[in-house]
Amino acid sequence: MGKNRLEAFSDGVLAIIITIMVLELKVPHGANLADLKPVLPVFLSYILSFIYLGIYWNNHHHMLSATRVVGGGVLWANLHLLFWLSLVPFVTGWMGENHFASAPTALYGVVLLMAAIAYWILLRSILRKQGKDSLLARAIGKDLKGNVSVVIYAVAIAVAFLNQWIADGLYVLVVLIWLIPDRRIERMLFENGKID
Amino acid sequence: MGKNRLEAFSDGVLAIIITIMVLELKVPHGANLADLKPVLPVFLSYILSFIYLGIYWNNHHHMLSATRVVGGGVLWANLHLLFWLSLVPFVTGWMGENHFASAPTALYGVVLLMAAIAYWILLRSILRKQGKDSLLARAIGKDLKGNVSVVIYAVAIAVAFLNQWIADGLYVLVVLIWLIPDRRIERMLFENGKID
Amino acid sequence: MGKNRLEAFSDGVLAIIITIMVLELKVPHGANLADLKPVLPVFLSYILSFIYLGIYWNNHHHMLSATRVVGGGVLWANLHLLFWLSLVPFVTGWMGENHFASAPTALYGVVLLMAAIAYWILLRSILRKQGKDSLLARAIGKDLKGNVSVVIYAVAIAVAFLNQWIADGLYVLVVLIWLIPDRRIERMLFENGKID
Amino acid sequence: MGKNRLEAFSDGVLAIIITIMVLELKVPHGANLADLKPVLPVFLSYILSFIYLGIYWNNHHHMLSATRVVGGGVLWANLHLLFWLSLVPFVTGWMGENHFASAPTALYGVVLLMAAIAYWILLRSILRKQGKDSLLARAIGKDLKGNVSVVIYAVAIAVAFLNQWIADGLYVLVVLIWLIPDRRIERMLFENGKID
Repeated sequence: MGKNRLEAFSDGVLAIIITIMVLELKVPHGANLADLKPVLPVFLSYILSFIYLGIYWNNHHHMLSATRVVGGGVLWANLHLLFWLSLVPFVTGWMGENHFASAPTALYGVVLLMAAIAYWILLRSILRKQGKDSLLARAIGKDLKGNVSVVIYAVAIAVAFLNQWIADGLYVLVVLIWLIPDRRIERMLFENGKID
Repeated sequence: MGKNRLEAFSDGVLAIIITIMVLELKVPHGANLADLKPVLPVFLSYILSFIYLGIYWNNHHHMLSATRVVGGGVLWANLHLLFWLSLVPFVTGWMGENHFASAPTALYGVVLLMAAIAYWILLRSILRKQGKDSLLARAIGKDLKGNVSVVIYAVAIAVAFLNQWIADGLYVLVVLIWLIPDRRIERMLFENGKID
Repeated sequence: MGKNRLEAFSDGVLAIIITIMVLELKVPHGANLADLKPVLPVFLSYILSFIYLGIYWNNHHHMLSATRVVGGGVLWANLHLLFWLSLVPFVTGWMGENHFASAPTALYGVVLLMAAIAYWILLRSILRKQGKDSLLARAIGKDLKGNVSVVIYAVAIAVAFLNQWIADGLYVLVVLIWLIPDRRIERMLFENGKID
Repeated sequence: MGKNRLEAFSDGVLAIIITIMVLELKVPHGANLADLKPVLPVFLSYILSFIYLGIYWNNHHHMLSATRVVGGGVLWANLHLLFWLSLVPFVTGWMGENHFASAPTALYGVVLLMAAIAYWILLRSILRKQGKDSLLARAIGKDLKGNVSVVIYAVAIAVAFLNQWIADGLYVLVVLIWLIPDRRIERMLFENGKID
């Protein structure tokens, strides 16, 4: 089965998720700059989630560009990932509107954690099809970043109920870890002259 | 006429339907975990509908991957299917917000039933173009799953007014029947070496 | 310039327009079938608009499948068409929520009229690039259906203030005229063996 | 890495942004033409933003059609542009609902300014990959329009607090500057016979 439609559908869902989040930014009724103040925390949580979704789109893009065959298992593993990502606007709005309170901050971490696990499952189901010696398998290697992220999310969820700002700081930390572009796959593909 | 734009448009509509459903998950005003409680039934109905739409996307994908020619009749049969699927967010929200009450549960089944019939019409209109001996016709065979689903929906609609939990259980049953991936088309295509 | 991205963008916008209309179907608060009653007129206007947008997508599809070159003028003529179509959810909601009252019914016709004019402009700007003897020019011929539709819309807008039901009936009439699939382009392409 | 998925994702996000703006046009409760009056300023701001997003889509289209290679830096520069454009519906709604008051008019200009800067960064990051003598570099030349726009936005933001109508007029002026289609890239490509 071709991977094109899987990419197109994922792109569509990610584009919609990233864009409907902005609907949580409710237009204030007053016309002064001060009226924007209550929108500010929602805006900050919007920026954070926008970057997270950008990272997922970016990594998803890389992962599939090194993939050839796509079977039924991969389709469902992909939908499972999109399911957790589709909850990002909800937890973003809840966290923003409550000024990064403990429970919403923890739930935000739960969704990120589940999305990370879903991404891991998707990666495994693609690798299973391609074999351990495949280009993708070698490119991913030990997936240190992915494993570190999961640990940080788990810590952040627990810490959120003690001090939510540490948890929020940990979410920013994961963003920074990933924003440094993951050139592993890109380099491997380049070295093997397989860029299409 | 090429089938690519039909696929792209269907993917777009399905991606939007599956994603705007999450807008029915209204962000609660309180910041405690207990404030999530009223959202829970909507969340459960969201999961159910997400899987249903995933199944439709998956099957739609399979069906068209074995299709070559697309005429005006197919375009409209496809729009007819998308129409019923576009009502899924509405009935999902109504069922969730009313904690799976009888009438919303029955209406949910009506929309599923109409979508199943629309899918059947789409399948017939594609097969009519391709002939009875085509790859797709042989792959589909008697379409047992599709027929069983229609019967279960009809039963669930009637039963919803007696006991809605049985009806909801029947919707979950159909999901389980379909989640076991339908490898018929995949296998046929594989055996004929026609995977592109 | 390639026409693929124009098609993809138009498909995206049309898919979103056709789908966000369903957000005008507000989930009722009660859980009885009777609570659906106020939603009914909105539902009827939704069906009407869904078919209209389906017709536009269908015709747009045909028109571009017979098009090769796309210039800046065509891009803007296309955006102009999408602008008027993007107003369909608004007028659909207004007409439905006010039970097909005169003013909303008339405004609905204005948007349809402007969309029809925008479609005509788009067609002209494509034909200007392709020449009078092009495949598309011959396939379209005198565009009787398009011209008749514009006249009916104009009549409906005026009539809406006398009796809105006649106006609504005229909108249904136009739908019926178009639902009979316009095989002109399809046939021409087929005869010329140019289907790709 | 292929540029197709970057185009598809950008098209998706732009299509959604341009379309969800229409959700800010709240359906009025009354059924008279007079009930449309409060919607009018939102409608005017909608037209303005629709054209702006159309210009961005158009220019984005041109820029990428002259691009071959896409790296990680370009992906993020593109997401950065989409981030600022995703805020357009918010500022459009705020400006429209407050009848083009000073603060919303100024904020509208800030978002336009940031989007223009993001577009400039994206252009540079593509050019850096392609070299100074590339087709795109020569086609863009000194990018006079882009530089003039940035200056006008900056002036408009400052002027908005003195007289917002001058600022709004300046936004219309930028639209007019860009609506005159930028044939530079198109011409260069044509002369080099590189249109694909």
